[in-house]
Amino acid sequence: MQEPIPDGMLDLAQRLADASGAVIRGYFRTAVAVDEKADRSPVTIADRAAEQHIREILAADRPADGVFGEEFGVEREDAASLWVIDPIDGTRAFITGRPTFATLIALLHDGEPVLGVIDQPVVRERWVGARGHETRLNGVPVRTRPCADLALATLSCTSPEIFEGRDTAAFNHLRAAVQRTTYGGDGYAYGLLASGFIDLIAEASLALYDFAALAPVIAGAGGAVTDWQGRPLGRGSDGRVLAAGDRRVHGAALARLGQALAGAAG
Amino acid sequence: MQEPIPDGMLDLAQRLADASGAVIRGYFRTAVAVDEKADRSPVTIADRAAEQHIREILAADRPADGVFGEEFGVEREDAASLWVIDPIDGTRAFITGRPTFATLIALLHDGEPVLGVIDQPVVRERWVGARGHETRLNGVPVRTRPCADLALATLSCTSPEIFEGRDTAAFNHLRAAVQRTTYGGDGYAYGLLASGFIDLIAEASLALYDFAALAPVIAGAGGAVTDWQGRPLGRGSDGRVLAAGDRRVHGAALARLGQALAGAAG
Repeated sequence: MQEPIPDGMLDLAQRLADASGAVIRGYFRTAVAVDEKADRSPVTIADRAAEQHIREILAADRPADGVFGEEFGVEREDAASLWVIDPIDGTRAFITGRPTFATLIALLHDGEPVLGVIDQPVVRERWVGARGHETRLNGVPVRTRPCADLALATLSCTSPEIFEGRDTAAFNHLRAAVQRTTYGGDGYAYGLLASGFIDLIAEASLALYDFAALAPVIAGAGGAVTDWQGRPLGRGSDGRVLAAGDRRVHGAALARLGQALAGAAG
Repeated sequence: MQEPIPDGMLDLAQRLADASGAVIRGYFRTAVAVDEKADRSPVTIADRAAEQHIREILAADRPADGVFGEEFGVEREDAASLWVIDPIDGTRAFITGRPTFATLIALLHDGEPVLGVIDQPVVRERWVGARGHETRLNGVPVRTRPCADLALATLSCTSPEIFEGRDTAAFNHLRAAVQRTTYGGDGYAYGLLASGFIDLIAEASLALYDFAALAPVIAGAGGAVTDWQGRPLGRGSDGRVLAAGDRRVHGAALARLGQALAGAAG
């Protein structure tokens, strides 16, 4: 059995989120310039300044740990403890004034996510999950909700445009089997799943900094989160994520995606 | 020239939003049962209770006016003054715990929207627009932002699934011409457009209670809002809405939609 993550690490993760949140609130709904990165995704000074503040705290408190952030790349990537940061997950939501982006902070031990924070600094909602701990929203334990059947499930996904090639058909095959689908939310939606308001999330083309924080939050709330083959998420994952509040729905969704990817979807 | 809407009507509209917001906050993120209506859209007790509170206030204060609400239909529909209510626009967002739904309240004079409220009761944001008044967000005047060219525009739409038939192709043709597209938001996104964070919204299949409140909010913030043929929105509209912060973008988007609907999109 693996040791619970020490409380001190959860406290540190919260200090990182406090620091980034203060920076981000200062830029929210101001006329920040929007640059495009090589992958055409938008980025602003808020993303960069928030990540810099997080890196400064980690450099002071955990100088031996590795850091991998969306905006400034990786340092000490072979360290056993690696912090993985997405300062603003959902930059499109941020720049359009929607309070549904999130700061994602994860700690990986030997490539496996063991601690995750999903922080919404405008509405001031923070989910913290870690190995050996119950997931909490603003300090209060949360649980996923039961959902017995895929046909009863509410599915969520940031945008249908995140899927490429045969993933599009697989997502559509899954979508045809659920009760309803909602769009938007990025990492924030995984917090809502942990709190029992969404049953299922299927996404693809995610980077490590997009999904690393989600796994401990969902696992600690009683949910299941894997890639589209049912394997645990970690540093080697391919960017496909399937999260469910109820294992029955997770299993049924895995089967449905597998059917489509095997070409059985017709 | 038409008279400005009297301040007393703006005050009444705000009281309606105060009443519905208090009801809705009490149900947000609780385990409310979700029913499906005939059109398969979800509805909850929060929708119904909020509309009932609004109707009670109108019955007491404006007994001669007509009322048309999403949940309880129409009364006195031939009255010159008609209140049009969507207690929770974005019920999918509401039931998944996202604070991006909105209460929409409109006043129509002879079928033309002359006053609109977009109220987000959880984040407590309220846009109020009316003929002869500047649009205000929580009391502070807001303006749309300039955007010189469709290629620079941020487009928003609640979900790509709201389009049917050739509207899907037309939306995709428009989407191919803008800088980026974001999903989610329902009526709330029109408030963000009025505040200058979104440049363009194109939607279809909207009912009168979905779009009536949006027109005065956007017009009073300096934007343009019509159907997909460039006609003013009103009681006879076909449910296609095109809103832009800058008239240049509105014109270019109208032309682009027109191309696609005329079959020139290839």
